Amino acid sequence: MALKSSILSLLFFFLFSLANLSNALKYPHKITQRPRKPCKSMVYYFHDVLYNGKNAKNATSAIVGAPAWANTTIAAGQSHFGDVVVFDDPITLTNDFYSTPVGRAQGFYLYDRKDVFTSWLGFSFVFNSTEHKGSLNFAGADPLMNKTRDISVIGGTGDFFMARGVATLMTDAFEGDVYFRLRTEINLYECW
Amino acid sequence: MALKSSILSLLFFFLFSLANLSNALKYPHKITQRPRKPCKSMVYYFHDVLYNGKNAKNATSAIVGAPAWANTTIAAGQSHFGDVVVFDDPITLTNDFYSTPVGRAQGFYLYDRKDVFTSWLGFSFVFNSTEHKGSLNFAGADPLMNKTRDISVIGGTGDFFMARGVATLMTDAFEGDVYFRLRTEINLYECW
Amino acid sequence: MALKSSILSLLFFFLFSLANLSNALKYPHKITQRPRKPCKSMVYYFHDVLYNGKNAKNATSAIVGAPAWANTTIAAGQSHFGDVVVFDDPITLTNDFYSTPVGRAQGFYLYDRKDVFTSWLGFSFVFNSTEHKGSLNFAGADPLMNKTRDISVIGGTGDFFMARGVATLMTDAFEGDVYFRLRTEINLYECW
Repeated sequence: MALKSSILSLLFFFLFSLANLSNALKYPHKITQRPRKPCKSMVYYFHDVLYNGKNAKNATSAIVGAPAWANTTIAAGQSHFGDVVVFDDPITLTNDFYSTPVGRAQGFYLYDRKDVFTSWLGFSFVFNSTEHKGSLNFAGADPLMNKTRDISVIGGTGDFFMARGVATLMTDAFEGDVYFRLRTEINLYECW
Repeated sequence: MALKSSILSLLFFFLFSLANLSNALKYPHKITQRPRKPCKSMVYYFHDVLYNGKNAKNATSAIVGAPAWANTTIAAGQSHFGDVVVFDDPITLTNDFYSTPVGRAQGFYLYDRKDVFTSWLGFSFVFNSTEHKGSLNFAGADPLMNKTRDISVIGGTGDFFMARGVATLMTDAFEGDVYFRLRTEINLYECW
Repeated sequence: MALKSSILSLLFFFLFSLANLSNALKYPHKITQRPRKPCKSMVYYFHDVLYNGKNAKNATSAIVGAPAWANTTIAAGQSHFGDVVVFDDPITLTNDFYSTPVGRAQGFYLYDRKDVFTSWLGFSFVFNSTEHKGSLNFAGADPLMNKTRDISVIGGTGDFFMARGVATLMTDAFEGDVYFRLRTEINLYECW
């Protein structure tokens, strides 16, 4: 009799557990708090040398769109509002511009606010090193006067197949309208 | 004997259940029909005042790219084909342009069809209110003559950490080439 | 006695299994190797006819941004660096330009490297056929001198609600700066 009742309670316990699990599977969005521990963390620097009419040889980026009141040679007034910049910037492991690049940051940014420097970024990290082959794709707003800014890792290929996460940008150096260096801390929360 | 066989059937039942669950975990993409119930729903309005050569002070957006046959002051013919617009638009809770903004919609849209107004959007909602801090990032096609159009929520930060979902756009007001207001219903299906 | 111990071992086995499952649910990012078998695979072609000053009628795309040293009528030197192109290209099931389109590829690409043809893409496949309604959104780097290039499927709507995956691009034809055709193999790994 005791045995029977213990089996019965065992049965109920398992059924309950299974029901819980099944619900969690069927309604993954209902998981109220997923752990925010990254499955992969990396820090890189990338270096942008903006074309200003005089540095054609060294420039890694150029203004390619501008509002009617400006032009594509010199960054526009009003916090560069409307300037669209295409870039192909070296990515390095340290903040040294002359260290060996591990890949290229490629894409565009645009300035989208009149009263304070703010940009919007769409770009990829294209890795080509012994450590990593593949790419990570990014998109997001960059209110660049803030010390740190978060953008989204929206996908990846190769070593970063199907990755998702958040990248935290920090301006590590800034020289007028010609050079800036961004520290990029990448935290992936979905790794395949 | 009866007890033994009931234990045995219990055993098979559990093994079967566990196998199912394990498979569902290992092959999440095989779940044929995930529930389409959002984990978060929100409605916002954003307001775009396009620069037209005369409204520099009030404009929240400007044409920054245009095809060879057009210019960046006035929207191009052929359904504005090729026009690229950068914007920094106030987001409000109601359709009242003068209500207190809860954030800014920042990014770009471009017109990409000659015979009917159609655009492509890449932008962020940057929230800065007592209710929300953080950002949501969007991308997608906007065939704007349709009553409603769906674009993707491709990521988020802060309060919207790692979010994914779908946003349904609806033109709520439209005044020539100078002003439009979009109702944006955001449904998130992945919340962390 | 033997029965009791077998029930006991059964109990431990299930508890262990359940604990494993629960952990997998709570820490989905810890799943070290998710299966890379797509939940949906498709192959499409899309056709780009670039405006070159003479083909206004047939062109499906146009340069809308260019660096200071170039213009928007003719593709720039230095591997077209800085050129931004808006497109609305027909999607077909075969490589035949004249076959019935199943939708439109709409968005933009930009050339972002000086020494070798490389582009960055942000666009959507907007399906409008008996087979599919809805859209897929793409973003990523396209080093177009490589035989195949992977970009990310960052979201979807309609029939492709919440989809994620990888698209492999292959240049299927290329005629000077006026026409190219891309074979696009889409593999979705998240289907809802």
